[in-house]
Amino acid sequence: MSRDNRGNRDNRGRRDFRPSRNDNRNRENREIRIPEEEKTPSADRLEGRNSVLEALKAGREINKLWILESKGDKKPDPILMRILSDAEKKKIPVVRAKREALDRMSETHNHQGVIAAVASHEYVDIEEVIEKVTSEGRSPFFVVLDELKDAYNLGSVLRIADAAGVDGVIIPKHRSIGLDSVVAKASAGAIEYVPVARVTNIAMTLRDLKEKHGFWVFGTDAEGQTDYDKADYKGAIAIVIGSEGEGMRDVVRKECDFLLSIPMAGNVNSLNAAVAAGIVIYEAVKGRNT
Amino acid sequence: MSRDNRGNRDNRGRRDFRPSRNDNRNRENREIRIPEEEKTPSADRLEGRNSVLEALKAGREINKLWILESKGDKKPDPILMRILSDAEKKKIPVVRAKREALDRMSETHNHQGVIAAVASHEYVDIEEVIEKVTSEGRSPFFVVLDELKDAYNLGSVLRIADAAGVDGVIIPKHRSIGLDSVVAKASAGAIEYVPVARVTNIAMTLRDLKEKHGFWVFGTDAEGQTDYDKADYKGAIAIVIGSEGEGMRDVVRKECDFLLSIPMAGNVNSLNAAVAAGIVIYEAVKGRNT
Repeated sequence: MSRDNRGNRDNRGRRDFRPSRNDNRNRENREIRIPEEEKTPSADRLEGRNSVLEALKAGREINKLWILESKGDKKPDPILMRILSDAEKKKIPVVRAKREALDRMSETHNHQGVIAAVASHEYVDIEEVIEKVTSEGRSPFFVVLDELKDAYNLGSVLRIADAAGVDGVIIPKHRSIGLDSVVAKASAGAIEYVPVARVTNIAMTLRDLKEKHGFWVFGTDAEGQTDYDKADYKGAIAIVIGSEGEGMRDVVRKECDFLLSIPMAGNVNSLNAAVAAGIVIYEAVKGRNT
Repeated sequence: MSRDNRGNRDNRGRRDFRPSRNDNRNRENREIRIPEEEKTPSADRLEGRNSVLEALKAGREINKLWILESKGDKKPDPILMRILSDAEKKKIPVVRAKREALDRMSETHNHQGVIAAVASHEYVDIEEVIEKVTSEGRSPFFVVLDELKDAYNLGSVLRIADAAGVDGVIIPKHRSIGLDSVVAKASAGAIEYVPVARVTNIAMTLRDLKEKHGFWVFGTDAEGQTDYDKADYKGAIAIVIGSEGEGMRDVVRKECDFLLSIPMAGNVNSLNAAVAAGIVIYEAVKGRNT
């Protein structure tokens, strides 16, 4: 597919299945805004050696640290030792706790000897990310998660976004999981680095990205007609990943300029949402670099 | 990279880090054999609508089915109805159970109203798979999992293997998880279709694949020197995926002809094992089809 085949956005002839636009509707409603009170806390605990170490490295504010007390007869764990010395340098209050106490506190049931109370995770503002990326002379690359339900998948996608150099991840405020301690753990620390925005309405956000910022929106769909490895991923793009069971909702699918298909040769032919995201996002990275 | 750069296998000049070969060692020891008693049961329960439905569709032997009793005031679930009617056609004994009873039985804690007692999962013999694939005029494509510990990851890799048309997945007998009900559920039914072999020694199996069957072996490694999208995946190949925390063991790494690297642009730069598998396996599919 060449760029020209995309159709001419100015003529609004982009896709047959796009809904007719109601030009009379109030533009104000389509602004991407995140009210102050919605930049709410989500994760106030981090658990596990990697999560806590990455938070310390990233300079995240940690209010208190619970760490497994070392036993005289056992060699202390080197990563726990490093966390301890970093925490002491930063004058973070540290509590030595028994394993049973950590077990009781743990939400992930896999604390690995350390739990941290942290300042709430800050969500970012999409407009600010776009401004920053554009000012660096680059085109933004967003990943949009339509109602992902599984903390493990969200954490995996954050790892992909970090590794692939994605500029921001957009999640819906409702009917989705937020950035809690389980996601933080599954993200192996990537949660500290990947800018995440929460929006009220994914479909409207996508429309704004297209109309106000000239984004091309790609969805992944079993019925997709564009081979994922033949799409043109250059420019400002957003890749939408649907939820685990049902895929993208119709209102979101309608906002996609292209529906990507991943070839399937088997009997079950369904990929885990994070795996599909990894395949498409890495293909996009290749396309953007050539 | 062109095929010629791979080096000449006949001259044994394939990689600098290959160990010198001890030609005196007993060839018998290097046979890929799976003793009868090791083709052992692993999953004897399936849980969840998808898992059970796929097992029925695939013709797997089901000994008994526990299904949530329907309440008069609620519309019965259509997938459960379908499972029920399929089971009746196949004369599988069905027990209507209360939710509490299913909850108690459940190992995955997500039975979705149905649990099945099944015949043990059959592992395949590598040699037989190679013979079958070769007889169809194709070159085999294997995925080898070196000590994957996470059931969710193993299930995800089985889904990838099914969708990508991989001919077989090889797992080690020890220090790895087998095909239990949690894996079955995470595989969304792919476990019924993807041939899985269990071997005693992954390193020896890889050496046999190379020496006896002319396989090229690819490992994924943070230190890899071959870009994953520039490798030549044609012919008989095996892609090795390391464990979640530590990656491949040294003994396994040494058997790889190529160590693939996935470019990382971020701060944490680690991908979930199943995600990395998806990216590399789908790249290989593309390379094999061109």
